[in-house]
Amino acid sequence: MANKAILQSLAAVFETFYSSEMPVEHLTKSIVYSIQAGGKRIRPLFLLETLQGFGLDITTAHLQVAASLELIHTSSLIHDDLPAMDNDDFRRGVATNHKVFGEAQAILAGDALLLDPYLLLANAALPPEIVVDLVRELALASGSYGMVAGQVLDMDGENQVLTFEQLKQIHALKTGKMLTFPFVAAGIIAQVSKEVIADLRLVGEHVGQAFQIRDDILDVTATFDQLGKTPGKDEAADKSTYVKLLGLDGAKVALTENLTAAKMILTRISEQTAFSQAGILEQIERLKID
Amino acid sequence: MANKAILQSLAAVFETFYSSEMPVEHLTKSIVYSIQAGGKRIRPLFLLETLQGFGLDITTAHLQVAASLELIHTSSLIHDDLPAMDNDDFRRGVATNHKVFGEAQAILAGDALLLDPYLLLANAALPPEIVVDLVRELALASGSYGMVAGQVLDMDGENQVLTFEQLKQIHALKTGKMLTFPFVAAGIIAQVSKEVIADLRLVGEHVGQAFQIRDDILDVTATFDQLGKTPGKDEAADKSTYVKLLGLDGAKVALTENLTAAKMILTRISEQTAFSQAGILEQIERLKID
Repeated sequence: MANKAILQSLAAVFETFYSSEMPVEHLTKSIVYSIQAGGKRIRPLFLLETLQGFGLDITTAHLQVAASLELIHTSSLIHDDLPAMDNDDFRRGVATNHKVFGEAQAILAGDALLLDPYLLLANAALPPEIVVDLVRELALASGSYGMVAGQVLDMDGENQVLTFEQLKQIHALKTGKMLTFPFVAAGIIAQVSKEVIADLRLVGEHVGQAFQIRDDILDVTATFDQLGKTPGKDEAADKSTYVKLLGLDGAKVALTENLTAAKMILTRISEQTAFSQAGILEQIERLKID
Repeated sequence: MANKAILQSLAAVFETFYSSEMPVEHLTKSIVYSIQAGGKRIRPLFLLETLQGFGLDITTAHLQVAASLELIHTSSLIHDDLPAMDNDDFRRGVATNHKVFGEAQAILAGDALLLDPYLLLANAALPPEIVVDLVRELALASGSYGMVAGQVLDMDGENQVLTFEQLKQIHALKTGKMLTFPFVAAGIIAQVSKEVIADLRLVGEHVGQAFQIRDDILDVTATFDQLGKTPGKDEAADKSTYVKLLGLDGAKVALTENLTAAKMILTRISEQTAFSQAGILEQIERLKID
């Protein structure tokens, strides 16, 4: 399935799930607002391209797993933007959820987006052992062992000078775990060996680091139009970033190094098992900055 | 297992899960603060007493399922108390989570408490088909089809005169689904017939209604010390309640009717299958008001 077809099928899964049969229409409306607010679906694409690399044809169940990941990611954006958190008015070029629907409903929309994904996973037509493994990985990636824990550390780190190791730990949790899930989940679904899953986890960790370094670089080099949100926020919040610690050139080198490492491990996987790299490499290349 | 032993074993499950190996200590600390803030564990007790009624010995896996339910319930209390929501300073007689740990961390602690439960479920030593069914039911009870949807409706209903049917619908979602889950989950774990699960769902719905009616009654008749929170909040928020719609005496009659209905269905279950009612009846009796 080509990229465009994947994105359309994914949109259909969201639409079917958040259909009119849900009991509270304006909750659904505020959820759909944030789902449709221009995300690039990079996490779902990582998952589905990796799956295709293992020779699987994309099914609705696979799209539901990818959608569950994107829902949790969307929740984190809504809650991060809240006045008590980053207090952002814009996200992906449009008003943030609480600016449109009010703070209370934005909190609740974010809550629903952490719970509904597990319904999607439970309803996915996959063997129950695989579903249980996916539930475990997604909960590990998102909760007290993952994204939420990283978000707490990230808040603590504002107005503090962090070491490179501290910064790496924050982002390994905050963005890294949710970017590692798609690779590991693809391995679980494709039922590859433990060794290959361990390698997929490494790929995800490097891609996660690359993603965050790229984000830090763009915060100082990009415009509002390019970012869809206010640039220079890190500087304004006096946050430690990869650019601050490594300099702009150093950050660019670190970005390249992580992408190279991810690609080397993908090559190793393709040498060990039936895996075609082309699709996922194309996705990873999108993280490059010229 | 007697009540006291159940509560101790449940506390041990929470302690093991939120142990020192979690990556961010002060997130764990704020989560544990709210878990230990004096909850009566009524939902876990409903689940575990019903399981014992079906003749099962309580295992760690059963306690983990019960714990997962209590965690999501705890999250809803933390988020409900936030300034943007009910803005409560006290809960169960102690300061609310955001009063102690700040608003941002309270939001994140609540978020983790929606995600971590699924890790508990995935790690419970139960057949994977059963785990998947439990994940589905818990997500249905809590997200856009359950608790969160009800909370949105409840907020909408403030400063509005609601009909009895509207009030019932709000509470069927807001409190009812999470009080129905323990009965249905017990049926899933005990692998009873679909008919018995349907009856267990009815029991939960009546218990859920009774619970909310009782809450509304206590809001006008109890003191701060009895409630552990500020009474008269409903009146102050100009909320529609069962007491407002039915009068105090009418609400008491409705409470009794729901408890009687629940008990009748439990008797029917015990006539259809091997089910001993004594333990669960004792729990349900606790909802009575003299």
